[in-house]
Amino acid sequence: MPNLYVALVHHPVVNKNGEAIAAAVTNLDLHDIARAAKTYDIKGFYVTTPLADQQLLVRRITAHWLEGAGGRYNPKRREALALIRLADCLEQALAEIGQREGRRPQAVATAARRRPGSIGFCELRKRLADGSPHVLVLGTAWGLAPSVFEKADWVLEPVQGPSPYNHLPVRSAAAIIMDRLLGCREGADLESD
Amino acid sequence: MPNLYVALVHHPVVNKNGEAIAAAVTNLDLHDIARAAKTYDIKGFYVTTPLADQQLLVRRITAHWLEGAGGRYNPKRREALALIRLADCLEQALAEIGQREGRRPQAVATAARRRPGSIGFCELRKRLADGSPHVLVLGTAWGLAPSVFEKADWVLEPVQGPSPYNHLPVRSAAAIIMDRLLGCREGADLESD
Repeated sequence: MPNLYVALVHHPVVNKNGEAIAAAVTNLDLHDIARAAKTYDIKGFYVTTPLADQQLLVRRITAHWLEGAGGRYNPKRREALALIRLADCLEQALAEIGQREGRRPQAVATAARRRPGSIGFCELRKRLADGSPHVLVLGTAWGLAPSVFEKADWVLEPVQGPSPYNHLPVRSAAAIIMDRLLGCREGADLESD
Repeated sequence: MPNLYVALVHHPVVNKNGEAIAAAVTNLDLHDIARAAKTYDIKGFYVTTPLADQQLLVRRITAHWLEGAGGRYNPKRREALALIRLADCLEQALAEIGQREGRRPQAVATAARRRPGSIGFCELRKRLADGSPHVLVLGTAWGLAPSVFEKADWVLEPVQGPSPYNHLPVRSAAAIIMDRLLGCREGADLESD
């Protein structure tokens, strides 16, 4: 059984000009990635931000769906948002997962552009098959800051379509990556043939 | 070369209780699906709604990014939103595409639950390879109304993860479906081996 977590990092990420920033939390990032995470049996969805007001926003959103009117109106949304965990930074998320799993997880950073030494989807899919804990690290804004790539154990190759356009929203990239790594693909049958 | 269009249908779709309704347009549906469509070389992204105020909203959003400040701030977003076309209904979209392509496209309806006689991703991927025009039909709210399935040429099997949870946002389902049909997959190499 694959043992995958997702972390959505809001700091340090880069802006349009490549400067390191802390990005604001986007409500629909939480909903969409939580719903995909629930679909693909992700074990936890960490939202990391060091900003107190942004942490409060995450808590308000999740409380609405877990304890408030949202969850009564749409229990399916509650199931998904129950996967959300808050952390100050990626390190804290990795430490928490390490404690739960009894060993430090492998951090897999994601990027929209190919980086040297990146791991392919098939290779990571195979690595996940042995059940060792991994964390898929997603960046908001214009992507993860260089320091995150330096600390990651792996960098995943970018999601590639037939066009050179590489500006998918993190919500969509997250869904595609989970599907490529964990989806019940007809392609998977071909591998076992 | 695959020849695929996408239509995001806002009427007739069903609500939580299965009743036919016209759904409101969601800003991020337009952005996210347009950005995925641009990534996967989709030929046009039709947004269909019969409601005048909702059509006006679509026009205001696209104008901001095509002609207004949005496009100057983020030209990549303009490239994606330029794929958006407005139509009163799916029939009108199909007619317009038929005129452009010189033949009526095949309409492929999508659903979160498996329906009898649905076509698989591999099969549709093969059908697309011959370059005949197809339209991927996506429903907003709780999905396409029964009448849309009746008129469609094909119904695509649902996106399936390892969990029974089948409540992906249409934005995420659209991205995964485009990737399964048009993505440069390592799995595709296996097929040609």
